[in-house]
Amino acid sequence: MKNTFGSSVALTIFGESHGNMIGAVLDGIAPGIAVDEEFIARQMSLRKSVGDISTARKEADIVKIVSGVFNGRTTGTPVTFIIENQDTRSRDYGELAYKARPGHADFTAQMKYHGFQDFRGGGHFSGRITAGIVAAGAVAISALKEKGIKIGTHILSCGGVSDRHFNDISGDIDKLDGLPFAVLNDECKDKMTEVILAAKSEGDSVGGILETAVYGFPAGVGEPWFDTLESVLSHALFSIPAVKGVEFGEGFGVSELHGSQCNDPFRSENGKVSTPTNNCGGILGGISNGMPIVFRCAVKPTPSIYKEQQTIDMNNMTDTTLQIQGRHDPAIVHRARVVADSITALVLCDQLALRFGTDWLAQ
Amino acid sequence: MKNTFGSSVALTIFGESHGNMIGAVLDGIAPGIAVDEEFIARQMSLRKSVGDISTARKEADIVKIVSGVFNGRTTGTPVTFIIENQDTRSRDYGELAYKARPGHADFTAQMKYHGFQDFRGGGHFSGRITAGIVAAGAVAISALKEKGIKIGTHILSCGGVSDRHFNDISGDIDKLDGLPFAVLNDECKDKMTEVILAAKSEGDSVGGILETAVYGFPAGVGEPWFDTLESVLSHALFSIPAVKGVEFGEGFGVSELHGSQCNDPFRSENGKVSTPTNNCGGILGGISNGMPIVFRCAVKPTPSIYKEQQTIDMNNMTDTTLQIQGRHDPAIVHRARVVADSITALVLCDQLALRFGTDWLAQ
Amino acid sequence: MKNTFGSSVALTIFGESHGNMIGAVLDGIAPGIAVDEEFIARQMSLRKSVGDISTARKEADIVKIVSGVFNGRTTGTPVTFIIENQDTRSRDYGELAYKARPGHADFTAQMKYHGFQDFRGGGHFSGRITAGIVAAGAVAISALKEKGIKIGTHILSCGGVSDRHFNDISGDIDKLDGLPFAVLNDECKDKMTEVILAAKSEGDSVGGILETAVYGFPAGVGEPWFDTLESVLSHALFSIPAVKGVEFGEGFGVSELHGSQCNDPFRSENGKVSTPTNNCGGILGGISNGMPIVFRCAVKPTPSIYKEQQTIDMNNMTDTTLQIQGRHDPAIVHRARVVADSITALVLCDQLALRFGTDWLAQ
Amino acid sequence: MKNTFGSSVALTIFGESHGNMIGAVLDGIAPGIAVDEEFIARQMSLRKSVGDISTARKEADIVKIVSGVFNGRTTGTPVTFIIENQDTRSRDYGELAYKARPGHADFTAQMKYHGFQDFRGGGHFSGRITAGIVAAGAVAISALKEKGIKIGTHILSCGGVSDRHFNDISGDIDKLDGLPFAVLNDECKDKMTEVILAAKSEGDSVGGILETAVYGFPAGVGEPWFDTLESVLSHALFSIPAVKGVEFGEGFGVSELHGSQCNDPFRSENGKVSTPTNNCGGILGGISNGMPIVFRCAVKPTPSIYKEQQTIDMNNMTDTTLQIQGRHDPAIVHRARVVADSITALVLCDQLALRFGTDWLAQ
Repeated sequence: MKNTFGSSVALTIFGESHGNMIGAVLDGIAPGIAVDEEFIARQMSLRKSVGDISTARKEADIVKIVSGVFNGRTTGTPVTFIIENQDTRSRDYGELAYKARPGHADFTAQMKYHGFQDFRGGGHFSGRITAGIVAAGAVAISALKEKGIKIGTHILSCGGVSDRHFNDISGDIDKLDGLPFAVLNDECKDKMTEVILAAKSEGDSVGGILETAVYGFPAGVGEPWFDTLESVLSHALFSIPAVKGVEFGEGFGVSELHGSQCNDPFRSENGKVSTPTNNCGGILGGISNGMPIVFRCAVKPTPSIYKEQQTIDMNNMTDTTLQIQGRHDPAIVHRARVVADSITALVLCDQLALRFGTDWLAQ
Repeated sequence: MKNTFGSSVALTIFGESHGNMIGAVLDGIAPGIAVDEEFIARQMSLRKSVGDISTARKEADIVKIVSGVFNGRTTGTPVTFIIENQDTRSRDYGELAYKARPGHADFTAQMKYHGFQDFRGGGHFSGRITAGIVAAGAVAISALKEKGIKIGTHILSCGGVSDRHFNDISGDIDKLDGLPFAVLNDECKDKMTEVILAAKSEGDSVGGILETAVYGFPAGVGEPWFDTLESVLSHALFSIPAVKGVEFGEGFGVSELHGSQCNDPFRSENGKVSTPTNNCGGILGGISNGMPIVFRCAVKPTPSIYKEQQTIDMNNMTDTTLQIQGRHDPAIVHRARVVADSITALVLCDQLALRFGTDWLAQ
Repeated sequence: MKNTFGSSVALTIFGESHGNMIGAVLDGIAPGIAVDEEFIARQMSLRKSVGDISTARKEADIVKIVSGVFNGRTTGTPVTFIIENQDTRSRDYGELAYKARPGHADFTAQMKYHGFQDFRGGGHFSGRITAGIVAAGAVAISALKEKGIKIGTHILSCGGVSDRHFNDISGDIDKLDGLPFAVLNDECKDKMTEVILAAKSEGDSVGGILETAVYGFPAGVGEPWFDTLESVLSHALFSIPAVKGVEFGEGFGVSELHGSQCNDPFRSENGKVSTPTNNCGGILGGISNGMPIVFRCAVKPTPSIYKEQQTIDMNNMTDTTLQIQGRHDPAIVHRARVVADSITALVLCDQLALRFGTDWLAQ
Repeated sequence: MKNTFGSSVALTIFGESHGNMIGAVLDGIAPGIAVDEEFIARQMSLRKSVGDISTARKEADIVKIVSGVFNGRTTGTPVTFIIENQDTRSRDYGELAYKARPGHADFTAQMKYHGFQDFRGGGHFSGRITAGIVAAGAVAISALKEKGIKIGTHILSCGGVSDRHFNDISGDIDKLDGLPFAVLNDECKDKMTEVILAAKSEGDSVGGILETAVYGFPAGVGEPWFDTLESVLSHALFSIPAVKGVEFGEGFGVSELHGSQCNDPFRSENGKVSTPTNNCGGILGGISNGMPIVFRCAVKPTPSIYKEQQTIDMNNMTDTTLQIQGRHDPAIVHRARVVADSITALVLCDQLALRFGTDWLAQ
């Protein structure tokens, strides 16, 4: 499968940055789930470019649902989300048609699609294609919320400035809900904005780390091999453009620990099992243990920078230089956050449907 | 899919730690690939417990191929690998039948399988099940080598001791080939062994990081969304027991870089495109760019330690304590290394077959 | 997978009969394939209702391609086809909202979707949803034609009137190309039209059999088990609404033959192997043998008839009667024919891409 | 997927006719299902060659379960079935190594596997490989029976002799249970045996039709498109060697009916909905309606006959003749019957797990 992921609940996405429409088909979501178009619009707004720290391209991102919803609820058949591209500049792309932008997919697209790819604005590789994921994810997030499952993502670090980790997970997720710039420590917002603007002023960009927590996910979901919860989540998360690392719980930090430090002891309170620590990030042996699922994604700095770079001319594969023009984000970590929430929700809906049946989410 | 992964080339694994047999079915591998039983045995030996730094359980791990090989070559139909369990102690498992070992899958298995799981020695969750992956991976590694594609993994860190990074990738992979304790800087071996033994003497265990490089992989393989090369590799890698993080190229380090530092400029030499740096780990937009694919896996310390731990009695979900007996590894990172090589080879064979057809590997 | 089929080349469909839009996403089709919008429109016209023998609902069925095509050729990324519903009558559906039409999916939809399904005009179960299959199939048919592979389907029987079988397969396929009412023996058209009109005049409907042939398909494609060519073709063909049987080559007739009659002897002419007979329908052991692939689909009579029928009221699951109003087809076999061609083309493109790689179709 | 089918419950098969072992891995079956080894042996005996009407090759077909069963019940992890090949004659295969047997997969295997296939006794294409399906199917049949779902297949026709159709479905399935030669009308057995022996005496073979019924399957299972119940069942059924046609309910007969004859009117008795007729075979719109699921498979005559046949020498693709020696079945329809039951059970377990969750079968 290429542009489809999931099994019982599956998402298919389509579109190019400067094409006619982008969108997504969400299939297998349980019938009877209320579809809140305002919430979808709210989620879309979190992905939009914001003020000075984002691209100057402004898209209305109006989501039109053209199938799968009847009388305000999902029918159980494919829900299709359509978003028209509007603010595409009909300028001459000039050298971007054949000069590979470093850090971008231009060269690899050429090797895979032999020059037939739509190169305008990154085409199908554009972060813009995540809009469909966010629209579909909003339905998944709503459905999970009805079952007491909440998801939240914050910017753990950006350009070297660090937010605090999750603490009170349920409360922290509520705090993040709807924040345009998602940090737990309020002071981080200005500091991060500063480093983003500083990079921007130099024609450069910064990266960051996103941290996601899932609260209320039931124990016993996932598989011991191949479709471990970590496997299916990372599979989806590595689709978010610019993600270069995914870690669960203590993540790479486990390499420095002794077993006696890393193991999470169990305890029981009135038959409810929990672990006071959560180094495993809520997943043991590939299966959820009922504790919050916690993971982090490393997001590389936007490759579109305004500094001159060495590259190749793909017409004849010779050396050249490139100075990118156009409208670009000096950071995308703040915009990618709602994509992380969305794709997480979609994966978890699929896992729950596989485990408990196709009706469970709406029962 | 649960115990099967891959699409055109797929692996199915089965077995339990103390069951009758473990094994794997490798399906879709091209017809005509030479199967070198000595090489398989060599690879199996790299996974075996070694001296003082591994479990005292010693398995012959003799691989029997019972289908799919005819006259020393693959037929194109499923290749089945069978390994009999031999050194299983018929002792009383006692409290391990109902006390959940912290850091292990005992509790999550109970929540998923309702007590019907084979708990002996971790059952189907045991690292022992990776033996089938290594056997099948050996065939994949051989096939890739014939096409000029080489894979090597070393212990980048163990218990706080760090090896050097890959340098000359082709030469380094050759150096690692067949090393029982895979480090690039020879001095690391003794230092790492020391920290493992120190942990062992305290009844404790240590974790580490594995770093893998793939040399010679062609450009243009992978997908922009969902089945990005990072996605499919991480999916498989997170199946290796104890892996809690996966990162590509500069990985989590990208979060600290500016775009101008992180982007890998292209250059061309006689039409051959390369990048002098490789922060992207050989993958851009989910697709290989022809540079070495480089990634790292964080491996948690073996959860089986001899110190007393707080846990629960799963019969009635009440608090209790546990002191694990039996034979366990004070570290598994050195044994997991060949599993990383193997699973990487299997994923790449699948990707190549999807991209270039089912015969490509043997042409 | 629910509304997606295929692996390397996959189709996802969406929409409801009286919803906003219907459509399809074609993923994995090779880059560089010429997209001929006139041919797509021609194919769409073959599915449309025609004169007196079809429903009075007339849809323009204008296909808009909103992604995946650039400069008139496929990009290699998802091609999305959108068709707006226009001729939907905003009448009161009245009793059809709760009375299950015999032979239709109303009752089974209720059992699966619990009343949340869009019941208007059959909703997602409507034959109208095949429009997306035909649009996508047109691209697949064009791509196959470039490789010398042709597909044709005719109405072998309708309401008891029989057409002749394929004879000169290549010539017969050419003859069928573009025929609005696809029969090989020209005299059949009038006779079949007569029986359709006779049924219509009684408020009744008729069924039929479609016979499809594929010319020029290479040998060596398919799998011995589970994904036999028969398996993947029948899987897709049974998705065409009203198909209740699929048979290959001599089909059910094989049950009456002796082995010496049924076996197709091989012969060779200048190294080119063929079989003078083709009882196996071009498939042996699940794999193509290079001869034409031939199969037949049984199509049941349209269940929407105007006679009074016994049924149930789904509000309280009690007996009632129903007399269907509205606009319906007295036969659909002639309209289903292009759907058979289309879905066959999509399946074969997938099989070829799996076998020979993702670029093969456009090389 | 090649030798694996199913999604939540999946089967992988392996082995060659004259290889070391054949077998199957059944993954995803619910934990806690009782595994009755006697019943497995009973089912295996139904597939065995019987008396004069089957091949002289006699295999003990002892099934060894080497994983996934603990204390007599499924664990929820892969159940692996191993069967050793014993009665393989170490004779010289001579001309069968390069002469393609008409009606067999020898030529198509050559085109797909380029001569690396194990040709001995048909290799991986042999009907012998169905033994693993029968072993795994026995577990699935047991699990379904516990939920009140019963499956039965009889020989509807063989060599021109016809059995009666299902009548009282539940009673008829019970009657068929364990019959070595499965017919509903007892008189058919001798007549069919006669025609088989008559064909055998001429060095020829006969085909037939199998009819299967499923009783007690719940309504609301299946999908409207692509994964219709007909699609997934036919996909699996066309894997049974020699099956060339599959039809549901009235099947090809629907082509001769009017809608008013073909539609099954609904009626309700105390809220329980049924249809007095069952022309749809229990499936409407791809989804079960709660009535018995009924279908038929056309089975071609065994291609191994003793008469001289025209064929090709695959060494140089020239014409030659072939007279097959060895031990072969003059009919396989009676042996294929338990394979039909088994594969049906496996498909239905998968569908139920997808619909109602992975635990449903054992709850």
